[in-house]
Amino acid sequence: MKKTIQKLDYLFSPRSVAVIGASNNPSKWGFGTIRNVLKGINNFRVYPINKKEKEIFGLKAYGKVTEIQEPVDFAVMVIPPQFTPEAMRDCGEKGVKSVLMISAGFKETGREGAELQDEVFSIARQFGIRVVGPNCDGHFNTESKLNTVGFDQAITGSVAVVSQSGNFGGHIIGEGTEKGIGFSKYVSSGNEADLTIEDYIEYLAEDDQTKIICAYVEGLKDARRFFELAKITTRKKPIILMKVGRSEEGAQAAMSHTASLSGSDAVHDAALQQCGVIRVDKVEHMIDIASALIRQPIPHGNRVGIVTIGGGFGVVATDACRRLGLEIPPLTDATVEKLNSLLPSRWSHGNPVDMTAVSYNAYACIGTLLKDENIDAVMAIGCMGYVPSVPPGLPEKLERELKAYNKEMMEGELSLLGGLVERIDKREKPLIITAVSKTDDALVLKELANQGFYTYKTPEAAAQVIAYLAKYSRFLSA
Amino acid sequence: MKKTIQKLDYLFSPRSVAVIGASNNPSKWGFGTIRNVLKGINNFRVYPINKKEKEIFGLKAYGKVTEIQEPVDFAVMVIPPQFTPEAMRDCGEKGVKSVLMISAGFKETGREGAELQDEVFSIARQFGIRVVGPNCDGHFNTESKLNTVGFDQAITGSVAVVSQSGNFGGHIIGEGTEKGIGFSKYVSSGNEADLTIEDYIEYLAEDDQTKIICAYVEGLKDARRFFELAKITTRKKPIILMKVGRSEEGAQAAMSHTASLSGSDAVHDAALQQCGVIRVDKVEHMIDIASALIRQPIPHGNRVGIVTIGGGFGVVATDACRRLGLEIPPLTDATVEKLNSLLPSRWSHGNPVDMTAVSYNAYACIGTLLKDENIDAVMAIGCMGYVPSVPPGLPEKLERELKAYNKEMMEGELSLLGGLVERIDKREKPLIITAVSKTDDALVLKELANQGFYTYKTPEAAAQVIAYLAKYSRFLSA
Repeated sequence: MKKTIQKLDYLFSPRSVAVIGASNNPSKWGFGTIRNVLKGINNFRVYPINKKEKEIFGLKAYGKVTEIQEPVDFAVMVIPPQFTPEAMRDCGEKGVKSVLMISAGFKETGREGAELQDEVFSIARQFGIRVVGPNCDGHFNTESKLNTVGFDQAITGSVAVVSQSGNFGGHIIGEGTEKGIGFSKYVSSGNEADLTIEDYIEYLAEDDQTKIICAYVEGLKDARRFFELAKITTRKKPIILMKVGRSEEGAQAAMSHTASLSGSDAVHDAALQQCGVIRVDKVEHMIDIASALIRQPIPHGNRVGIVTIGGGFGVVATDACRRLGLEIPPLTDATVEKLNSLLPSRWSHGNPVDMTAVSYNAYACIGTLLKDENIDAVMAIGCMGYVPSVPPGLPEKLERELKAYNKEMMEGELSLLGGLVERIDKREKPLIITAVSKTDDALVLKELANQGFYTYKTPEAAAQVIAYLAKYSRFLSA
Repeated sequence: MKKTIQKLDYLFSPRSVAVIGASNNPSKWGFGTIRNVLKGINNFRVYPINKKEKEIFGLKAYGKVTEIQEPVDFAVMVIPPQFTPEAMRDCGEKGVKSVLMISAGFKETGREGAELQDEVFSIARQFGIRVVGPNCDGHFNTESKLNTVGFDQAITGSVAVVSQSGNFGGHIIGEGTEKGIGFSKYVSSGNEADLTIEDYIEYLAEDDQTKIICAYVEGLKDARRFFELAKITTRKKPIILMKVGRSEEGAQAAMSHTASLSGSDAVHDAALQQCGVIRVDKVEHMIDIASALIRQPIPHGNRVGIVTIGGGFGVVATDACRRLGLEIPPLTDATVEKLNSLLPSRWSHGNPVDMTAVSYNAYACIGTLLKDENIDAVMAIGCMGYVPSVPPGLPEKLERELKAYNKEMMEGELSLLGGLVERIDKREKPLIITAVSKTDDALVLKELANQGFYTYKTPEAAAQVIAYLAKYSRFLSA
């Protein structure tokens, strides 16, 4: 294993953590940091460092890292910039392997800050310490429970996030958590005075916990290395990249934000495509495609079979697919014949399949489309997990009957789920579900999500997911 | 007032309603319909019609409409298609003014259905009855409380929705309700054998309850009339249109769904633009722009001032604005000087304004941008309504302190709100807010929504809203 990768193990899974700048004062950043770190105290030792306090959150506080008796693998620094050279030297003398610098006020603020940054990082280099930041928001590892950033709501999963913006990184984690997906590791990379986005991707490519890598990037310090890494990595796990600074004005804003040089967007775009990187422009797209890559098969082509509870959704979905270059092929005769036996005679007799407000055979219809040899991916809209609402104020008997009816329907759907998942896997075709009337009672959608099959809010979002999957498939099979 | 418009008053605000096909059986559509209609029983009389039942939901059931003693303004028909000619004749003899036909199995199913449709509608014409549908999902009026469709969650407001798809109409109402916006009237227009999208728009243009018209359209029966109407209407209230069938395959699906001819998309697009119709491709865009038009001023141009809690959001927002043709102008010297006095020295010193994680002067910064003469609209990202989470398990005293701190912050924001709204109105510049860390405790965002200022989920969504507003402004001032 390479040296960098080993040092990053200390960053993500240390045996002991010093919090330099831990505080009892809620208005200080160091208050939040120690609070976040303490959540993992069963997995590692924690040492608060504060020159004034005797005790922090019930733990003995140390004046400096060198006063600690036991070895310290990792330190997080959340102190004013002028105190960081001394703190870094202490870390070096103590034998700290890795430091994360939340502290800001360096290169991003101008010449003086840049000089201070150089000073701190020459000390770090001298002692062989690998450093995250400065001017970063923190990181987490859901396995080791080390957390320097917050985002308490994040659950364990297989998606890793690296972000050159702390606030946008939080946005990604927040949106992903809302969708129900789990995360392996997160790191806000800040000014990247030492460790860069390339280092993190190299590490995550080898990380068993991580199946999918998401990155928010303003600029690449070593574009050639990035593209070389990406080319190898995307063959084994997908990289989803939001590379901003596409516009000249955006590039300027990136320069002022993290001193990043955005580079020529057209050049980047072509290179990213060649490396199989999935480039997105919106956080929703990032989360949607990440969630689909967690469990769905990669389709073998771009031909979509659509099945809907009503015609309007079919029209919207067809338009959305065509806009994104996906095909809506005709159904084979065998499929039409099978659907004739499953649906009322008024069904659309074509692709999109309009079930005309009758959903009792939805699973069989979806199964039939998965089997159709002209279809590479199936989109289902409004035909799974629909539970009619039971309004208040009904006669007691009726309310009982309606609830029993809903329960029976859900149990029926749940009993069909195993067979459906088997077909998805056997045919190697994704099933992308739009849940237009999602309710808490739609147990089948919850169960699907438990198994890694997430649902999408609109037919347009579902089409976008299939388009990304189809494009990634073209790269993998080229 | 035109005749059509008068007849539509009977449709939306009748004094009495017959439900032809009302049922006690939850598996029948007529069960849901009578249940929905009964919610408004304090505002109009309700007569269930069913040939077999004596009583429905405690009300006397009639065998046919002509058995009712009192006058009947409006009837909803939810019976098998073969019984509709007789029922329509009964309505004619009884003097019913308007009928809504949920019943399906007409032109959308082929030649036989088309013949039956012709038969029913020649009876309706003979008696001068104006008819919604057939093959529609129902309608509602939040003022009269008449509801034949469900969507119980919809609240009263100023947005009207007309939809050629029942299921997509429900999707629009659902997404809108989730955003917190209220609706005036809704109608699912079905096959449009009599009343068409043009009739509804003509009616809604004159409707005092309605400030904004949203329409989902698969095909226009009388495109010339539509464009003439739109040209006049958009001068007094915006029309937001989702016209599908853009792709050939989508157009075919529309034909099979509601027998609509989509027409040439390029021709439609140009004509819609000329008429000031706001054309959208996604339901999210429809809801986002509708919500902005409820209360925000229309900007005078397309120059956007951006203020963010952190740099990453600024870069993303700048890229998104540029992609949509919006300008990110430099700040005036006066603005820079003012911001120097409000922000730490490390602020970005340009547009986008990066407050660098310091939000205490956010309202003053936003106010400063609203005042800048080079700026037509302000986008604020993550700098309003932010409430840090108070994690469980803190020492009691600290928890108390943190909560007090949050409360104080929110009260501070609430006290500034009036002044901010005044500036928005005075400068006639919209303030489009991205709330990236929305929590239940963010009272200021709730209060803004109460006053008609909604928030958007991502910088990209906010940019899209401003782009639509700027385009509409160009039309209005041309």
